[in-house]
Amino acid sequence: MSGTTSGPGVSVAGPDPRPGWLPDAVARAGARLVAPGPETEGLLWFGGDLADLREALTSAPGTRWVQLPSAGVDAYAEGGFFAADGVTWTSAKGAFSRPVAEHALALTLALLRHLPERARARSWGESAGTSLFGADVLVLGAGGIARTFLDLLAPFGTRNVVVRRRAEPVDGAERTVTTDHLEAELARADVVVVAAALTTQTRALLGDAELAAMRPGAVLVNIARGGLVDTDALVAALASGHLGGTAVDVTDPEPLPDGHPLWDLPTALITPHTADTAEMVAPLLRARVEENLGRFVAGQALEGVVDHAAGY
Amino acid sequence: MSGTTSGPGVSVAGPDPRPGWLPDAVARAGARLVAPGPETEGLLWFGGDLADLREALTSAPGTRWVQLPSAGVDAYAEGGFFAADGVTWTSAKGAFSRPVAEHALALTLALLRHLPERARARSWGESAGTSLFGADVLVLGAGGIARTFLDLLAPFGTRNVVVRRRAEPVDGAERTVTTDHLEAELARADVVVVAAALTTQTRALLGDAELAAMRPGAVLVNIARGGLVDTDALVAALASGHLGGTAVDVTDPEPLPDGHPLWDLPTALITPHTADTAEMVAPLLRARVEENLGRFVAGQALEGVVDHAAGY
Repeated sequence: MSGTTSGPGVSVAGPDPRPGWLPDAVARAGARLVAPGPETEGLLWFGGDLADLREALTSAPGTRWVQLPSAGVDAYAEGGFFAADGVTWTSAKGAFSRPVAEHALALTLALLRHLPERARARSWGESAGTSLFGADVLVLGAGGIARTFLDLLAPFGTRNVVVRRRAEPVDGAERTVTTDHLEAELARADVVVVAAALTTQTRALLGDAELAAMRPGAVLVNIARGGLVDTDALVAALASGHLGGTAVDVTDPEPLPDGHPLWDLPTALITPHTADTAEMVAPLLRARVEENLGRFVAGQALEGVVDHAAGY
Repeated sequence: MSGTTSGPGVSVAGPDPRPGWLPDAVARAGARLVAPGPETEGLLWFGGDLADLREALTSAPGTRWVQLPSAGVDAYAEGGFFAADGVTWTSAKGAFSRPVAEHALALTLALLRHLPERARARSWGESAGTSLFGADVLVLGAGGIARTFLDLLAPFGTRNVVVRRRAEPVDGAERTVTTDHLEAELARADVVVVAAALTTQTRALLGDAELAAMRPGAVLVNIARGGLVDTDALVAALASGHLGGTAVDVTDPEPLPDGHPLWDLPTALITPHTADTAEMVAPLLRARVEENLGRFVAGQALEGVVDHAAGY
């Protein structure tokens, strides 16, 4: 195939194993798979020690595009990777929305239906729980996960409000407000779902004051990043009984250490960053990489381009 | 109001308390609220000892309509209530579909996302779980709960099959098959949801052979009646590891007694018949009763009429 000898050089950073489908995908796109070096124009990173990514970039000064394997890129922002000029970084943002939004709904329903308590029970109990139908739901963030979560909510007729940086409307939300209205909106919601990117602006977005502003008995779900919520404040809001419950797929610190007080709270449910398992993500990441390889060779706009200023 | 002196007599069977909204609702419909007796034409039953219902019917031989408070009417069928000629029985069937279908989805997602295991954990764990997106779902039954459950599944793009008495198509199902195809369909499903009525035909619909026919690792959800599933067979199918898990809101016997082996199985989740709590049901039952009072006075067809032959 002509593409394999004349197309742009694409490399994989870091040690093997690379995905088995990769060589064929590079060839099909019309690119050449080369070791990181002077011929590299596009660099693919499937995870590992960030020092390996840094080393690959240093050895490949002609790199114009780097594909990252995750939706959240806070670790790369903190590592200063986005400072280099002339490089387009793409993430998997949007590509993993479905499994993560599904997990958010699973956690929401589990809290409303008292499933953590029932999973621990060894005896019949009283009828208890509340319905999601017609509930007031507040979604923090307006990215792919937030939007897909709103799609999953549609059959429940919930009244949805989105909090985001800019007040542009979002499909499925009755209102979209900016972050300076956060406390007022927290006071109106039965369910709060954290689906925002972790940036310098959003770190500890939910602290003592914000959790205190939540409606008594409301529930909090976090499927984004642990650092968006002040963990000590969360423990206090649960221990006092102010919040009805929390379910978090992400924690700060993460992994949550043994003996952490959050493990002992009966109204807390913790899943180990498993909203999108490797098995769920693999075909979605492959589709994103194949799409971007084709666009890169054709000189088209790439999908999932990281906004350096916004940090996601 | 003329209706309160000239309309048909409507009575409440059983001891007080009757719902506070009832007298107004009867008057608004144009009926007269009377004690069970010769003037009674419509009889409302809000639950209690079935002996009280029997006594009220005996004292009110002119009864043409009885409104029951639940969606499932197996207890009344077994009690021989439907044998009397000239009486139309209505249930709440269809009225409580939303909260029960919601609970079915909550239980389904909880199993797929390993939430029972995580609720019991006191330590971080491995990433695990499967996604509902694109899964093969088998729904047993085609009543209001089954149909609403299919609505909730729509955003997940699942491939849905319905098993029912007659092979008439159901919205949201790729195929609808009759019960004689049950084993073949059980073999194809990732998720099996029991949403059928309990009748003499459906008792122990899922026994040893049917559970053995299920795909290894598949999960079973029952939000209908415990008697639809052979509990001993279910325990065996979980203990052997053949099934990936089960979540049941109904059991046989019910309540499930302390010390029952189902309590000890790590892949079982039991909720105490709480898919529709009294709080969730109250406004839905009120709406059904108000609707039927109006239709009864106007001589129109009632909602939720029980099919005596079918048993639901």
